[in-house]
Amino acid sequence: MQRPEPQEFARVLSSMCTEPHPAARAAAERYLATNPGDPGTYGAVADLEREAVEMLGAVTRLDDPTGYVTSGGTEANIQAIRIARNRKRDVVDRPNVVVPDHAHFSFTKAADLLSVDIRRAPLDEDYRADPEAMTALVDGDTVGVVAVAGSTEYGRVDPVPALADLAHDSDALLHVDAAWGGFALPFTDHAWDFADAPVDTMTIDPHKLGQAAVPAGGLLARAPALFDTLAVDTPYLESTSQVTLTGTRSGAGVASAVAAMEALWPDGYRAEYERAQDLAEWFADELRDRGYDVVDPTLPLVAVDVPTDTVEALREAGWRLSKTGAGEARVVVMPHVTRGMLRAVLADLDRLG
Amino acid sequence: MQRPEPQEFARVLSSMCTEPHPAARAAAERYLATNPGDPGTYGAVADLEREAVEMLGAVTRLDDPTGYVTSGGTEANIQAIRIARNRKRDVVDRPNVVVPDHAHFSFTKAADLLSVDIRRAPLDEDYRADPEAMTALVDGDTVGVVAVAGSTEYGRVDPVPALADLAHDSDALLHVDAAWGGFALPFTDHAWDFADAPVDTMTIDPHKLGQAAVPAGGLLARAPALFDTLAVDTPYLESTSQVTLTGTRSGAGVASAVAAMEALWPDGYRAEYERAQDLAEWFADELRDRGYDVVDPTLPLVAVDVPTDTVEALREAGWRLSKTGAGEARVVVMPHVTRGMLRAVLADLDRLG
Repeated sequence: MQRPEPQEFARVLSSMCTEPHPAARAAAERYLATNPGDPGTYGAVADLEREAVEMLGAVTRLDDPTGYVTSGGTEANIQAIRIARNRKRDVVDRPNVVVPDHAHFSFTKAADLLSVDIRRAPLDEDYRADPEAMTALVDGDTVGVVAVAGSTEYGRVDPVPALADLAHDSDALLHVDAAWGGFALPFTDHAWDFADAPVDTMTIDPHKLGQAAVPAGGLLARAPALFDTLAVDTPYLESTSQVTLTGTRSGAGVASAVAAMEALWPDGYRAEYERAQDLAEWFADELRDRGYDVVDPTLPLVAVDVPTDTVEALREAGWRLSKTGAGEARVVVMPHVTRGMLRAVLADLDRLG
Repeated sequence: MQRPEPQEFARVLSSMCTEPHPAARAAAERYLATNPGDPGTYGAVADLEREAVEMLGAVTRLDDPTGYVTSGGTEANIQAIRIARNRKRDVVDRPNVVVPDHAHFSFTKAADLLSVDIRRAPLDEDYRADPEAMTALVDGDTVGVVAVAGSTEYGRVDPVPALADLAHDSDALLHVDAAWGGFALPFTDHAWDFADAPVDTMTIDPHKLGQAAVPAGGLLARAPALFDTLAVDTPYLESTSQVTLTGTRSGAGVASAVAAMEALWPDGYRAEYERAQDLAEWFADELRDRGYDVVDPTLPLVAVDVPTDTVEALREAGWRLSKTGAGEARVVVMPHVTRGMLRAVLADLDRLG
């Protein structure tokens, strides 16, 4: 039967995923029929997963990292909140987690799943977490505090060290969501990683800026014991317990994460960050020259205030374009996004806007 | 860098996954860089997902099915329990779910995640759910009852119609876990599907006996409204809400599920079930002839009581073999398991046992 073509990336402007690196694609195809969820049976891919975690530790400057390759950032964020909740299960009855308002909607899922209150604090005027506003929401039932390093809507980086202090003053955990930003931030001056601050857990996704194939998210923890509260017995597997949210998992994702990081860490990621950041700044300037309000790109993500009708017209012209909660059009300068694509967007904007 | 070979299936005896069908592998490779979690952007794979759900409805005899392709059976089981819990959130304070003792460990994960008590009822003497024992555990806080159609350890099928009555008498939902058995059961006389009983939700995994590539699990519901309690707003996507547990999802899994089901439903799955069931019965007879106790294979899964030392010796000889909770060796006759493999196992058993 004839099938539609899979998505071409030539018109995708708002996705946080991208075309996998060729080495990542090859590795995914080679390991398609393996299951790191059953490491006793599928030993080769289990070894690769240990390697993936080691490499994620190098990217985030954590020696001897503990963690695993998740199905994506949502699973990693849910699991981090679950760790924070379970750690204080015996002392806190109605747990809450304090997050900045731009925290990803996966934290809303986590709230429903885990019966944890998510308290959202307003941002500062530059769309970053405001430690004072977050402090006002922390109380004796707070089990976790979240910092975002590369926010979904504006690519902003929260003040991670200040939020780590806030968390630890309340005996809560500090979780950093660097799902998207994690493979760009090592080449910036932002303080965001395990060496910059006493971060407890972190989400960093190889299948976003890491250029691995989906599904390859990442969850890391500084202290191995943090994972102990997640362990569930697995009677019929060759291994004996499991801390992951899912059971059977994708060996393709694990293998492609290792292949991408081997190919690109650090020089390839640095080159891509510099290319994308330059391009984002150029695109922002072009938009400003046309009179549009632009949210300044601190990472390669441009949000621009264009009328809803114009966004709709651009979509009808074939651009895969989404909006922020406040209504700006949102362009994520992923590896597949070229200057040629952005010139074409500008031309369509001039014609349709 | 030189990499170890990915798992060869020639020695895998206990996995519930298998080598994907060639058409499923090709589709997975083609759709590797798509994300059904963002259907506005990745439209082609979103269409394929609707097709996958339709086909799963055909396999389980449900008209107009609602559901989605999950990361696997664990996500599907967790989500089914979440639906049951959320549906009664306003009336039940300490929800419980009553399951037969052989229910998969994903229900233990669900219990921890969702703060739901999982009450495990003892099985009958044939390793099936005992409706009387389960009735004794149901009370006013019961939000769900689980039936297993193809148990992980012995391949047993619970009395689904009786358990559906039990659930509905208590205004609870009946969830059927057919993660593994779902692509064999249509060719048996068991009563297990949506037409056999008023089943509310079902787990059925294309990436097990369905011969799709990982990750492709399946969750179906009879009433579309059951998914409404899971919906979370998604401000920055082109779509506006999401009911899945994960966010970014694998287009490879979705596309390969459709390709496998198109290639194999129903005749290919029937032929494979008949081959595997014959082989399981032959293998069970061979083991009995050698004096071993065998749990009779009602589906293509053989559990045999061999001493622990012998299981260890078989593992050292290279067989990927796991044990049941009671200690039997467990051979799952998946599509990659041939008579030649089982003859070789028997020869090793004769030599080592």
